[in-house]
Amino acid sequence: MKKIWQSSTGTLNKGVESYTVGDDFIYDMVIFPYDIRASKAHAEMLGTIGVLSEKEVSDLSFELDGLLNMYERGEVELTPEDEDCHTYIEAFLTEKLGNVGKKIHTGRSRNDQVLVATRLYMIDSCKKIEERIFSLVESFFAIGEKHSWIVLPWYTHTQQAMLSSVEHWLLSFAESLINDLDFITSMRKILSQNPLGTAAGFWVTFPIDRDMTAKKLGFHKNIVNSIFAQGSRGKFESLYLESLSQIMMTLSRFASDLLLFTSREFSFFSFPDSLTTGSSIMPQKKNLDTMELVRGKTALVQANQATVKNLAKGLISGYHRDYQLLKKLVIDSSDITLASVEVIFPYLENLQVHSENILSSIKKDIVAADIANELVEKKGMSFRDAYLQVKDDLESIDIPDYSANIASKKSLGSAGNLWKELIQKHFSDVRSSR
Amino acid sequence: MKKIWQSSTGTLNKGVESYTVGDDFIYDMVIFPYDIRASKAHAEMLGTIGVLSEKEVSDLSFELDGLLNMYERGEVELTPEDEDCHTYIEAFLTEKLGNVGKKIHTGRSRNDQVLVATRLYMIDSCKKIEERIFSLVESFFAIGEKHSWIVLPWYTHTQQAMLSSVEHWLLSFAESLINDLDFITSMRKILSQNPLGTAAGFWVTFPIDRDMTAKKLGFHKNIVNSIFAQGSRGKFESLYLESLSQIMMTLSRFASDLLLFTSREFSFFSFPDSLTTGSSIMPQKKNLDTMELVRGKTALVQANQATVKNLAKGLISGYHRDYQLLKKLVIDSSDITLASVEVIFPYLENLQVHSENILSSIKKDIVAADIANELVEKKGMSFRDAYLQVKDDLESIDIPDYSANIASKKSLGSAGNLWKELIQKHFSDVRSSR
Amino acid sequence: MKKIWQSSTGTLNKGVESYTVGDDFIYDMVIFPYDIRASKAHAEMLGTIGVLSEKEVSDLSFELDGLLNMYERGEVELTPEDEDCHTYIEAFLTEKLGNVGKKIHTGRSRNDQVLVATRLYMIDSCKKIEERIFSLVESFFAIGEKHSWIVLPWYTHTQQAMLSSVEHWLLSFAESLINDLDFITSMRKILSQNPLGTAAGFWVTFPIDRDMTAKKLGFHKNIVNSIFAQGSRGKFESLYLESLSQIMMTLSRFASDLLLFTSREFSFFSFPDSLTTGSSIMPQKKNLDTMELVRGKTALVQANQATVKNLAKGLISGYHRDYQLLKKLVIDSSDITLASVEVIFPYLENLQVHSENILSSIKKDIVAADIANELVEKKGMSFRDAYLQVKDDLESIDIPDYSANIASKKSLGSAGNLWKELIQKHFSDVRSSR
Amino acid sequence: MKKIWQSSTGTLNKGVESYTVGDDFIYDMVIFPYDIRASKAHAEMLGTIGVLSEKEVSDLSFELDGLLNMYERGEVELTPEDEDCHTYIEAFLTEKLGNVGKKIHTGRSRNDQVLVATRLYMIDSCKKIEERIFSLVESFFAIGEKHSWIVLPWYTHTQQAMLSSVEHWLLSFAESLINDLDFITSMRKILSQNPLGTAAGFWVTFPIDRDMTAKKLGFHKNIVNSIFAQGSRGKFESLYLESLSQIMMTLSRFASDLLLFTSREFSFFSFPDSLTTGSSIMPQKKNLDTMELVRGKTALVQANQATVKNLAKGLISGYHRDYQLLKKLVIDSSDITLASVEVIFPYLENLQVHSENILSSIKKDIVAADIANELVEKKGMSFRDAYLQVKDDLESIDIPDYSANIASKKSLGSAGNLWKELIQKHFSDVRSSR
Repeated sequence: MKKIWQSSTGTLNKGVESYTVGDDFIYDMVIFPYDIRASKAHAEMLGTIGVLSEKEVSDLSFELDGLLNMYERGEVELTPEDEDCHTYIEAFLTEKLGNVGKKIHTGRSRNDQVLVATRLYMIDSCKKIEERIFSLVESFFAIGEKHSWIVLPWYTHTQQAMLSSVEHWLLSFAESLINDLDFITSMRKILSQNPLGTAAGFWVTFPIDRDMTAKKLGFHKNIVNSIFAQGSRGKFESLYLESLSQIMMTLSRFASDLLLFTSREFSFFSFPDSLTTGSSIMPQKKNLDTMELVRGKTALVQANQATVKNLAKGLISGYHRDYQLLKKLVIDSSDITLASVEVIFPYLENLQVHSENILSSIKKDIVAADIANELVEKKGMSFRDAYLQVKDDLESIDIPDYSANIASKKSLGSAGNLWKELIQKHFSDVRSSR
Repeated sequence: MKKIWQSSTGTLNKGVESYTVGDDFIYDMVIFPYDIRASKAHAEMLGTIGVLSEKEVSDLSFELDGLLNMYERGEVELTPEDEDCHTYIEAFLTEKLGNVGKKIHTGRSRNDQVLVATRLYMIDSCKKIEERIFSLVESFFAIGEKHSWIVLPWYTHTQQAMLSSVEHWLLSFAESLINDLDFITSMRKILSQNPLGTAAGFWVTFPIDRDMTAKKLGFHKNIVNSIFAQGSRGKFESLYLESLSQIMMTLSRFASDLLLFTSREFSFFSFPDSLTTGSSIMPQKKNLDTMELVRGKTALVQANQATVKNLAKGLISGYHRDYQLLKKLVIDSSDITLASVEVIFPYLENLQVHSENILSSIKKDIVAADIANELVEKKGMSFRDAYLQVKDDLESIDIPDYSANIASKKSLGSAGNLWKELIQKHFSDVRSSR
Repeated sequence: MKKIWQSSTGTLNKGVESYTVGDDFIYDMVIFPYDIRASKAHAEMLGTIGVLSEKEVSDLSFELDGLLNMYERGEVELTPEDEDCHTYIEAFLTEKLGNVGKKIHTGRSRNDQVLVATRLYMIDSCKKIEERIFSLVESFFAIGEKHSWIVLPWYTHTQQAMLSSVEHWLLSFAESLINDLDFITSMRKILSQNPLGTAAGFWVTFPIDRDMTAKKLGFHKNIVNSIFAQGSRGKFESLYLESLSQIMMTLSRFASDLLLFTSREFSFFSFPDSLTTGSSIMPQKKNLDTMELVRGKTALVQANQATVKNLAKGLISGYHRDYQLLKKLVIDSSDITLASVEVIFPYLENLQVHSENILSSIKKDIVAADIANELVEKKGMSFRDAYLQVKDDLESIDIPDYSANIASKKSLGSAGNLWKELIQKHFSDVRSSR
Repeated sequence: MKKIWQSSTGTLNKGVESYTVGDDFIYDMVIFPYDIRASKAHAEMLGTIGVLSEKEVSDLSFELDGLLNMYERGEVELTPEDEDCHTYIEAFLTEKLGNVGKKIHTGRSRNDQVLVATRLYMIDSCKKIEERIFSLVESFFAIGEKHSWIVLPWYTHTQQAMLSSVEHWLLSFAESLINDLDFITSMRKILSQNPLGTAAGFWVTFPIDRDMTAKKLGFHKNIVNSIFAQGSRGKFESLYLESLSQIMMTLSRFASDLLLFTSREFSFFSFPDSLTTGSSIMPQKKNLDTMELVRGKTALVQANQATVKNLAKGLISGYHRDYQLLKKLVIDSSDITLASVEVIFPYLENLQVHSENILSSIKKDIVAADIANELVEKKGMSFRDAYLQVKDDLESIDIPDYSANIASKKSLGSAGNLWKELIQKHFSDVRSSR
């Protein structure tokens, strides 16, 4: 397909063409429906301000709807020759409607088209991810309750430190995800700024009604300055990827814990065969490849954010083709994050807890700090003195009742007092702030 | 100074000691006053719940205030032997008050001490940076007005694209910074969670009143789960650094523009000698080293955020010494960002605009799109056809009146209609949301 | 296709399966021929040590050759169900040869299979890239000669500093690429270590002849320790990506220079329409999108290297599934680098130099340092004094003969004395060291 | 101190001055002796070509030696006012020798001064690090021998996979370090290119003898093109940091293994109290903070390399002040790497191996693959069939003789056949290639 900007005589060097297109058409297939949505809103607005007739608007809307249906039925295929989804959609409309099809480009540029479609995509991606995280938090609550009061040694420096419980541990992820939700929802509001009408960073001749397209597309407000609209590239993608990266950090922590706790030497937890993979050479192996990949893919999302920043750094204001590369970084990260959230569910739901193994792994001096605290409370010693006294004779500690120990830990947010009502409150706060 | 956890007989390998301390004591000097503040709140709370007597609380408060004064007068010096500021402060109190000094450690661990002090530091740093950005936005507004209606060619792909104006360009940074403010203030609320009372991630024996310390220290809420309190390490620092990195991206864009526009070939802008540096070998040189450093230091802050994530990735729950390295990344980035915001002011205020150079640099075909738009409007051509007609005869374009051209660009957010009232509204919205 | 490690009863959770496979099968299509090559060498070696009969070896070789032909004709298609290319190839052999097909797995594990195939791929990729860079260096030499003695102002801090020449500038890239070649070839020798026979990091029962497979596959030596063979993952990929990243840094520098020098304000160089792209909205635009993408893709390769390191950091010894993600990072980077080297050729060959524009851009005080040097030479002043004298009266400088100026710069490696014979010597040194 | 490039009337804005100087003077204290060394070589060369008299050369040499002595006795202190060490040194010479002191700047620029000093520093740093790694490899050999034939389960996916031995494991680090040595020494040869005489990227008026300074300073060759001399910034630093990063990856792997193997649940190894640190709250804790910091600091060095690339990306040819920031990244990384190599020694030398704990941790099915292999060898089954047979009845495996098991693993590079002579050969190869 001929590029829109090509005059009749030009031919673009083949190598240049293939280098500039790259694998962009793959990612444009993802952006496709968002351009349709924005194009409809744009056409309707052009109708309202009198640039298009009512008939033209309804023809364009009809064809755009039809194209969306085709897309959803898998009947649209972009090829490297199509340049991008925006060109494809305009060419489709022109083929169907002739001159009217061409008119949809009035008052916009490919630049604000890409901006608006990508932004709608990111906002949508946030919402999808948020939905699944709401479910995941509930799952952490539920599985926590299922294993309530099961003792778990807890660690600093990968060394047994004090006693905790399985539910205490699981709730830490619930709260971490609630924080992630808090962040992603407030960040999403910053993303929600309508770039339509900023064209290539300059202006449009027609009295575009930007408030109208903002409203039709569900944006919170308009981005104002057309140079900043372009300047938000890189910045907004980085914000978006920060929220994904925060989620991956939470999941990666959970994955790392599982990998350690399911090792032969720990054997605190196990999983059914349907959730583990084997080895081509060692018949006994049951590996948690999935959790290793969650950990590894965390690095990918982190890298995608760093790349966004590296790409943008040092560029002067205005559009540069470097920004084309942002799309892949955003879409890949969205896919990774959504899939990673999803893959956690079966592991959480099928977590098998082996409390006998846990108990036999605990070393009695794990209560040393508790004993020191007792000396403070009951004998009025300073903590420092109590600490040193206990440290000097760890062997003489009596084997404690571990369950009683955690039950007695009544401070807020600890294993004996999970303060669930406050976590729940934070959870419903974030839900209602969306 | 002896480590608090050392019994009388132990000696730590010298190499191990120096490796673990590193340059941490330098950064602990920065954290110092925040630990004092948290220690006072903790002591007062211990008084309220009856762990300390009224007298003990007032003695501790008195000594902590005295220490803060000494600190502010520059009379405190941490050395590598002091381990860290937390140990130093406790040792100071113990020296002054004996046993009472030791009691301040009741119900807390060095872990939640570090967490609370670092968090207070980050929140404070945000507020300081926000203040300066509020001023900087105002400065961009003011300097923009000063140069209103001065034509500036604008660029895509570093090629002249359409006409814009100096004020249009300057307002793009104002809006970018307002977005940065929006982000940093909403992010700061997420940081604002009290970790005091989560000890080393487990519990405390005493019925600590966490709401009270939260309130005394100005936190929005309590972090609940004590394992998550530790788990927030890395995550919160990354959020914080994202907001700094966003600011640096805005400044770096401004710096990059200045570097191009002050080159001999552009000569659009210049600066007085007091803001440029010379060369040891070339007498004619006037370099904008500062702006190059703003651009370069943007990479440093970006790297610090990426490092935070790399540090945390793959670690199991619970504290690890790796987290000690976060402090430097946070403090260095805060210093860089604050200094970089500061250094922008004189360049903005002393911007010399050479409109004659600007005008002579503009190539007349910069209005090609405007002419095509005119053909659409006046002759009813489709934009695509108008575009091709203009493209085929660029040479025949008449030299336009550039000022009239930008004045006619009335679309919202463009050079002829800056929509300043909406930017101003966003500015006051972010101010009132703090 | 059933996984090799699955017993008859197991079924793997669908979500787990699709998460672990990911897009790996796409990258396994690239690795495919390298596994065939390694499999042939392995089979021949098994024949020599008597594990396979002569007939079995020739049957396996025949089928592997056939499969390679199919692959090269595009008749092989991996699907997510195939697990990976290694499983596919074994399954193919088993289908063709029954039990003999299964025997090829004797004395190896998927782990050393992946290692050897990926390593052969990387070595091959290096060689291909090196070949193209040898040509590119020659092209820089040739285009340099074509534009010899054309004056070019040269820059520090993006400010005109002293005079140079187009050839001087072009030779800087030739020398940069020669350094890149030097590095990639010496790095490639480190990569060239045979991992076959290290299995999954442990051992093999059969008296594998590792020297034989090393020789057959063209490796410089054997990797010895089987735990280190696994431990080299991440490390070797990082080395490889460093060499690609070095090349991209050179290309990106060239791209950045072109982007500046072809701007309207510089207009030093231009390119034919077949090498520039247009704008959908501005008829006059001729953009160097390709060079912007070279610059942007440099960030991608940099990020891929950083990701490799992040992935590996903190993992204990032994294989982890995280390492699966290395493949994509390596292959994507190889594709990017090769395509980027390739796309430079037409720009170099079609570089249009506008010396009149260059000359009119030069500000006469560009020779200030030269005048100061003259004062040193002719009047015996110290350089510092001469410098200050010239600086105080820049306006009085006579407009110099720029051509004579660069001709007089006879110091080695400068515009007037390019010292080409030494660059050529370094070039032939690196060629002969391969 | 007045900047060399300032005329008598100029005053630099204070904020600008402090922003541009930054903490550079701290790092210039490190570079200091390298500038002295390069200055001496430069002065001697100027004498040979007749620019300086014999007397002047000997005066300069004498003062430079004196200054070096002062530096080594700690009597030199750079302050932010000194601009940098190069200015300081010239000012010192001018103070001592008047006009002769100024003459040392003849034929060089601060740019090639910085380049040569930094490069000499990097080469020196490499050599120091190499020396310590040679010792460390020997230590790994020695400690390996001390624990030879002690069984150690080995892991894939953090799951017991097959049996190995303590020596096998330790030798994997020896070989990894030998590879690191191989890389750093070949990389160092690429660094070893003399930039003196390339001035600020242009030329020098005097017939500088670059071969002479190259030889005096021990460089392998001259960098030729003066534009490339500047263009090597960022590239050479990245190469250097790749070699440091490779070393850190090896150390980090060792650290990660120790952290796991010393956990209570593993208890394979332990360390004396002098090598562990305690907790302020838990009397029983013995933490390996050092190893956590080795792991964490690996991320710092990785980040420094990524920053170097980010800094350089997108810059046009020629010097930019962004490059000033490279110095800190290089020096910090050198310090971290050297200290990290150093801190490994005591841990290696004091490694306490608890073979009874190791044995009791092994699960008997760790030999499942061995049994499958036996079925192949003795019963002629295909490996795939043997694998499935063993997999279906893991419980019936007899508890094996673990020592006999590893002794029987005779394949090259495995626990039963460490192939130490080949590792030793690679070790001496790398030693003799320096």
